[in-house]
Amino acid sequence: MPTDEIVLDFQRSERIGFDEAIFCQGKTTDQLNAILDQAKAKSAPLLLTRLTPLQLEGLTASHRASIDYEPVSRTGILGPLRPATPARVAIVAAGTSDAHVFREVERSARYYGHETHGFYDVGVAGLWRLLNRVEDLKRFPVLVVVAGMDAALPTVVGGLFGSVIIGVPTSNGYGVAEGGHTALHSMLASCAQGVTVMNIDNGYGAACAAIRVLNAIDRARA
Amino acid sequence: MPTDEIVLDFQRSERIGFDEAIFCQGKTTDQLNAILDQAKAKSAPLLLTRLTPLQLEGLTASHRASIDYEPVSRTGILGPLRPATPARVAIVAAGTSDAHVFREVERSARYYGHETHGFYDVGVAGLWRLLNRVEDLKRFPVLVVVAGMDAALPTVVGGLFGSVIIGVPTSNGYGVAEGGHTALHSMLASCAQGVTVMNIDNGYGAACAAIRVLNAIDRARA
Amino acid sequence: MPTDEIVLDFQRSERIGFDEAIFCQGKTTDQLNAILDQAKAKSAPLLLTRLTPLQLEGLTASHRASIDYEPVSRTGILGPLRPATPARVAIVAAGTSDAHVFREVERSARYYGHETHGFYDVGVAGLWRLLNRVEDLKRFPVLVVVAGMDAALPTVVGGLFGSVIIGVPTSNGYGVAEGGHTALHSMLASCAQGVTVMNIDNGYGAACAAIRVLNAIDRARA
Amino acid sequence: MPTDEIVLDFQRSERIGFDEAIFCQGKTTDQLNAILDQAKAKSAPLLLTRLTPLQLEGLTASHRASIDYEPVSRTGILGPLRPATPARVAIVAAGTSDAHVFREVERSARYYGHETHGFYDVGVAGLWRLLNRVEDLKRFPVLVVVAGMDAALPTVVGGLFGSVIIGVPTSNGYGVAEGGHTALHSMLASCAQGVTVMNIDNGYGAACAAIRVLNAIDRARA
Amino acid sequence: MPTDEIVLDFQRSERIGFDEAIFCQGKTTDQLNAILDQAKAKSAPLLLTRLTPLQLEGLTASHRASIDYEPVSRTGILGPLRPATPARVAIVAAGTSDAHVFREVERSARYYGHETHGFYDVGVAGLWRLLNRVEDLKRFPVLVVVAGMDAALPTVVGGLFGSVIIGVPTSNGYGVAEGGHTALHSMLASCAQGVTVMNIDNGYGAACAAIRVLNAIDRARA
Amino acid sequence: MPTDEIVLDFQRSERIGFDEAIFCQGKTTDQLNAILDQAKAKSAPLLLTRLTPLQLEGLTASHRASIDYEPVSRTGILGPLRPATPARVAIVAAGTSDAHVFREVERSARYYGHETHGFYDVGVAGLWRLLNRVEDLKRFPVLVVVAGMDAALPTVVGGLFGSVIIGVPTSNGYGVAEGGHTALHSMLASCAQGVTVMNIDNGYGAACAAIRVLNAIDRARA
Amino acid sequence: MPTDEIVLDFQRSERIGFDEAIFCQGKTTDQLNAILDQAKAKSAPLLLTRLTPLQLEGLTASHRASIDYEPVSRTGILGPLRPATPARVAIVAAGTSDAHVFREVERSARYYGHETHGFYDVGVAGLWRLLNRVEDLKRFPVLVVVAGMDAALPTVVGGLFGSVIIGVPTSNGYGVAEGGHTALHSMLASCAQGVTVMNIDNGYGAACAAIRVLNAIDRARA
Amino acid sequence: MPTDEIVLDFQRSERIGFDEAIFCQGKTTDQLNAILDQAKAKSAPLLLTRLTPLQLEGLTASHRASIDYEPVSRTGILGPLRPATPARVAIVAAGTSDAHVFREVERSARYYGHETHGFYDVGVAGLWRLLNRVEDLKRFPVLVVVAGMDAALPTVVGGLFGSVIIGVPTSNGYGVAEGGHTALHSMLASCAQGVTVMNIDNGYGAACAAIRVLNAIDRARA
Repeated sequence: MPTDEIVLDFQRSERIGFDEAIFCQGKTTDQLNAILDQAKAKSAPLLLTRLTPLQLEGLTASHRASIDYEPVSRTGILGPLRPATPARVAIVAAGTSDAHVFREVERSARYYGHETHGFYDVGVAGLWRLLNRVEDLKRFPVLVVVAGMDAALPTVVGGLFGSVIIGVPTSNGYGVAEGGHTALHSMLASCAQGVTVMNIDNGYGAACAAIRVLNAIDRARA
Repeated sequence: MPTDEIVLDFQRSERIGFDEAIFCQGKTTDQLNAILDQAKAKSAPLLLTRLTPLQLEGLTASHRASIDYEPVSRTGILGPLRPATPARVAIVAAGTSDAHVFREVERSARYYGHETHGFYDVGVAGLWRLLNRVEDLKRFPVLVVVAGMDAALPTVVGGLFGSVIIGVPTSNGYGVAEGGHTALHSMLASCAQGVTVMNIDNGYGAACAAIRVLNAIDRARA
Repeated sequence: MPTDEIVLDFQRSERIGFDEAIFCQGKTTDQLNAILDQAKAKSAPLLLTRLTPLQLEGLTASHRASIDYEPVSRTGILGPLRPATPARVAIVAAGTSDAHVFREVERSARYYGHETHGFYDVGVAGLWRLLNRVEDLKRFPVLVVVAGMDAALPTVVGGLFGSVIIGVPTSNGYGVAEGGHTALHSMLASCAQGVTVMNIDNGYGAACAAIRVLNAIDRARA
Repeated sequence: MPTDEIVLDFQRSERIGFDEAIFCQGKTTDQLNAILDQAKAKSAPLLLTRLTPLQLEGLTASHRASIDYEPVSRTGILGPLRPATPARVAIVAAGTSDAHVFREVERSARYYGHETHGFYDVGVAGLWRLLNRVEDLKRFPVLVVVAGMDAALPTVVGGLFGSVIIGVPTSNGYGVAEGGHTALHSMLASCAQGVTVMNIDNGYGAACAAIRVLNAIDRARA
Repeated sequence: MPTDEIVLDFQRSERIGFDEAIFCQGKTTDQLNAILDQAKAKSAPLLLTRLTPLQLEGLTASHRASIDYEPVSRTGILGPLRPATPARVAIVAAGTSDAHVFREVERSARYYGHETHGFYDVGVAGLWRLLNRVEDLKRFPVLVVVAGMDAALPTVVGGLFGSVIIGVPTSNGYGVAEGGHTALHSMLASCAQGVTVMNIDNGYGAACAAIRVLNAIDRARA
Repeated sequence: MPTDEIVLDFQRSERIGFDEAIFCQGKTTDQLNAILDQAKAKSAPLLLTRLTPLQLEGLTASHRASIDYEPVSRTGILGPLRPATPARVAIVAAGTSDAHVFREVERSARYYGHETHGFYDVGVAGLWRLLNRVEDLKRFPVLVVVAGMDAALPTVVGGLFGSVIIGVPTSNGYGVAEGGHTALHSMLASCAQGVTVMNIDNGYGAACAAIRVLNAIDRARA
Repeated sequence: MPTDEIVLDFQRSERIGFDEAIFCQGKTTDQLNAILDQAKAKSAPLLLTRLTPLQLEGLTASHRASIDYEPVSRTGILGPLRPATPARVAIVAAGTSDAHVFREVERSARYYGHETHGFYDVGVAGLWRLLNRVEDLKRFPVLVVVAGMDAALPTVVGGLFGSVIIGVPTSNGYGVAEGGHTALHSMLASCAQGVTVMNIDNGYGAACAAIRVLNAIDRARA
Repeated sequence: MPTDEIVLDFQRSERIGFDEAIFCQGKTTDQLNAILDQAKAKSAPLLLTRLTPLQLEGLTASHRASIDYEPVSRTGILGPLRPATPARVAIVAAGTSDAHVFREVERSARYYGHETHGFYDVGVAGLWRLLNRVEDLKRFPVLVVVAGMDAALPTVVGGLFGSVIIGVPTSNGYGVAEGGHTALHSMLASCAQGVTVMNIDNGYGAACAAIRVLNAIDRARA
């Protein structure tokens, strides 16, 4: 496969305020190596999502060495991290089983220069864990709510807070919850007003959606 | 259609403690009239579920007169009501849009001799409405939880109470919630332990399930 | 049905900055009349969504007279409109077939005190119609993108603008597009980063999500 | 991942009469080790469900040694078993292919202090196997019915007995039965009155539902 | 629409032993009148299935008069009935709600010259109703089993009898059973060996399948 | 609704060789009247698809009079028809039940200046009807194959002819065939090589796809 | 797991003319060994379906030696084969990709004492391969038609022959055909009259259905 | 398995202008070796699709040596390539993740004697990449558009070009896009007129569809 097949959209950042991340699922290691060659040639930083350990191993030693890899989220970051703003995004999750997703939110937001703050294990079957944190949570203009199974959490959160709420359903489950469609549908049908929803397991997209909000805030203040 | 096509299971009551209700959906008025003839001939009371106003009109004047019809639940009751026990079943619902279902639970339970107590409009997007009623709800050994859309209610209820919990998803909704499958799946995937679930809109079945529990309690006390 | 079944959440506004709208689908006219009685007793304004002409007719003459009804969106507004802020939300739609949805966004946002600006008939099969409006669209911090069928529009819009993007899939279509699930899935799987999604036909929710963003902007500026 | 991500709900037992079980699917061994550390620090017993042999191997030697693991149900129990009450719950199954589920019911009930009695291989294609056991089965106030494929068993059982009936569909099957959705739907649509249903393969939940009934009986007798 | 659009397959009978029936759903009355003209011109008898009362009214007076119409099954028969053989096909049904289907089996079989015998209201939730008829049912080489909802009947029947078993799922139901897919899947996944299945509500096809068996028997005897 | 909401793409014809048709489903009569006003103002011809009799009635008398309406296909044509080329597209259909679709192919192709030739009632259950027409069919460079239910026709046609084959599944059917998804999937999975497929009931799209081929032929010859 | 969990239905043969086969999917090797012990203790022959090579390896050496295993169909037969009748069942298949299914039909029929005759690679995209075999195929009272992907074969076969036709959809395919649901639905919606259908990949069931027909023929001749 | 099970359709080429390709999924290596023996005996070239590396290894050394294998598309070609015509088919793809599909289009077209030209990485989220290539793309009478996820590309392409457009959805994706059904439905519901669609991942079929168009062009010019 000739490397000229790969045309990265390096202008995207100017247009929309983000550079392009590389979605690695389905890509061969030859393609990934070519992408990394291009990025290095331009001294461009790069976020790689859904990069499996097997794909990582297939990279050239030099590329492998220059990537900061986090295995739970399966994200890789090339290049030095830009300085980060203090956390204006809280990540709220029902349990540690969804770590692959909230880690992807964290890492993606950090790559684009934003710290996040995590509130984990606040599932609504033990409501007090969430109610105890209400004052802490109120400070954040954006709440990313990560939940699988029945995904009751965004509805409770959406009824308690006036913040921007971005739901991310997760695929971890079994029976009717397998694959995350129940969590997705539950979030879309939420009785709380104005809860927005991302694709299943799309932690990267949730981070981008949060940053679109932060950028709108910053532009309004400018 | 000859009336000998219809063979009611009058012995069911002895076997399982319930007599048979008549599910009217899909039945012709000829069939319904024949069923009512049989019941009257045996002086048997009868519960008719999913009896549409159109079907009601198609009955003989005599049958129509002897039925107590409730239009929201579309239930009809033939024969004098047996005396009722005080309410040991609470019906908990997220909103008045689901009245066709919680009325069916009420009417069915009443037909079999059990009062119920209703807690309506306690949806979790306004959590305080439910939290205000915790002490009241604790008194009931059985909670029938009726919810549509995202059906977050049974999870919150299941995490607050140790009672028997019977979830009934409702079909009222739109988009991904249309038809009630999202509510059904959400209840089945509930993060609260031991929440049991009925078919969508099956208020009659929920009443029967509740009565099976009450009968188990009564037999244990005997 | 006793009116004490209906417990409106009048405190919601203090908690999250919105008062509660009434979702009319599945409600009887008795229930709607009781809700309007309560609201008038408290001099509370009220937004009614999915109010069919048939339900409207069933209201008392006095209630009917006090409601401003818009038939395409099927929304009714009780009470004087609060003053509105200039439009910071643009509604972008692929065609006039989706008017029931973008009118619901408009009306809901206006009820909560926000003007909107509409860009209709900018479907991507005739790309120039959208490209001609790029400069106009850039001014809006929030874009609500309404699209049915294949819903290619949010991806193109998401790649052109750095604004907050809220997609609303619509149910108008046929074959695989019937009911709006194709449009919904297409938006969730959008290749543009950070596009958020609402339930099918949920114009009301999109307006609320947009307002959550505007409130975040306003709080940050305060 | 810092261990303060994990906040177990140790008060749940006081609230609803159960402590929290750990659903291991999707958890890393680091997370599981941290959970076990917490439990041991509090001398709390713990039930682990869906614990794979691979996860078990990944635990510290000390944790692995202190867990009683049963491979068919994939359950692990930490801490001494509390004394058990005699069996008031019967588990009824159509065949040995569903052993992973009925073993999970057994183990979960036993963890919470309840013996169960198993009736296996009573599928309705060989009806006599069930009819021969009618008198034995009548003694149990709660019947957990485990069935896959067409799941005809709960309907036959529900028509024969007045007990509380909790159906658990199983995922073992092929073609239209693959994944257990046919069994699930068949149970939800059961023609027998008042059959309640759990998520596919949710033996743990069925045990909890059964115990909610036993607790209701015990509270009523108290 | 020119009548030469319609080319009936009058030779089918010689090829496979059946003439062609006319599936009326989706046909205009012009098309139906043209088909009846053709059939009368050839003095060919004709079976019309899924003929709605509205379509019947749209036929010419002469065609309407020459058709024997049965409203429950929505079948029309043109031409004199051929003499019928004694019943070798039993129709077994769980309840009168499925009359539209078992009447279609009866009428179609009769059109092709075969009597049938009906056993209705033998649902498995009241097992004795079926067990009482075992000796009667054993006499029939072919059993057509009509069932909706959970469709447990074919499994019980298939385990009791060695006959040819043809299951017909019905669409009458609600919630997960709406449209008949649960009944269809339940029959396909039947634990009884060698149960064959037709499309939902396809009573006509079941009659044809039964006749294919009777013809095989008759050819073997010849 | 202001008429400036409607922006027709009159340049499309220059770009891709087609002008835009108006998909009427979901449009109000106000919107349709405004569209017709615009077209007349530009003396542009117009094809209206999925125009219901009710919508037609709602048009102004003047618009209604200037439209040539065909009720089976629900198409309306405004303006004089351009001269037509002889038929190079054959429409092949399994039966008259699918007339609403093959009439839409005919009308749409004719609107764009192309005659078609219809071969109806050539379903594969009576194979001779198709085999008799093989020589006739060979003459056409494009075959549009319209089929519902099991849609076996495109596979047989695709194995017999080397022409361009465009399959259009139809929604007319019942049980598993209801809505046309079985026909759609069957065509997509066709064992014949290179069969292309349109959305369910999309006769208009099939005509456009056929014309794209004819235009490619004509451009190559030019 | 105690061996008394396993209760084989050895009387089934007397009741319906078949003994019970063992469906091995989901069974542990302990369970399979116990089943084989029981069968040997009664000198009963046994058919094992869906027996994987891994399960086979897990059997005791003695059991493994006494089983005749065929790897394509994954069937094992214990005990001497009974003498076989000449082939009255033809197996018709579209291609060699479905060998796992038609081998299961062959092996199951042979186990129960019936030879079969195979016609493979007669897919309808190359129609002449089937048309060349018409006379050969006419001799068989029962045709088992095995097909995947679009499953057009049963419709063509059903239109050519008056025999009993049993369709078996296969799971081998990709895209919309993955898992066999398209083939299943296509067979159920077949335009040919009286085609009966089995679950996906259920070659064993098809053999049983065929034998039910052969037994009906034999009983009629007796 | 006897080799006479395999009957290749060597006459197909005369009939429709293509020879038969071998779909290897689900075939055993014995079957593949037999097919290659037959092809060599006739000196026939052969295209093998979906040939896994594992299957390749299982071939005889002689067969393996005579096959030109390409691992990304998993295609094998036996025999010398025929001379190729210059590219009249462009392959347009949204990204390198779909290489398995566009390589299959390339290889299949080349096997049948047609060069193709690839335009990769022209996804619509970075619209300029496509707009820059408009003049290049206009030269091709046939555009094969390969896209996964939301598949917005065919709609944009279909609105820009009057060429024949053949969409191929790809299965690479996650959440709602997993398996390619979202991309498939999006293409079928495309707002651009006359976009035709293939099964998910069916690059081979797209090549055949393109060649049917090229052959129609060539026949018209002859």
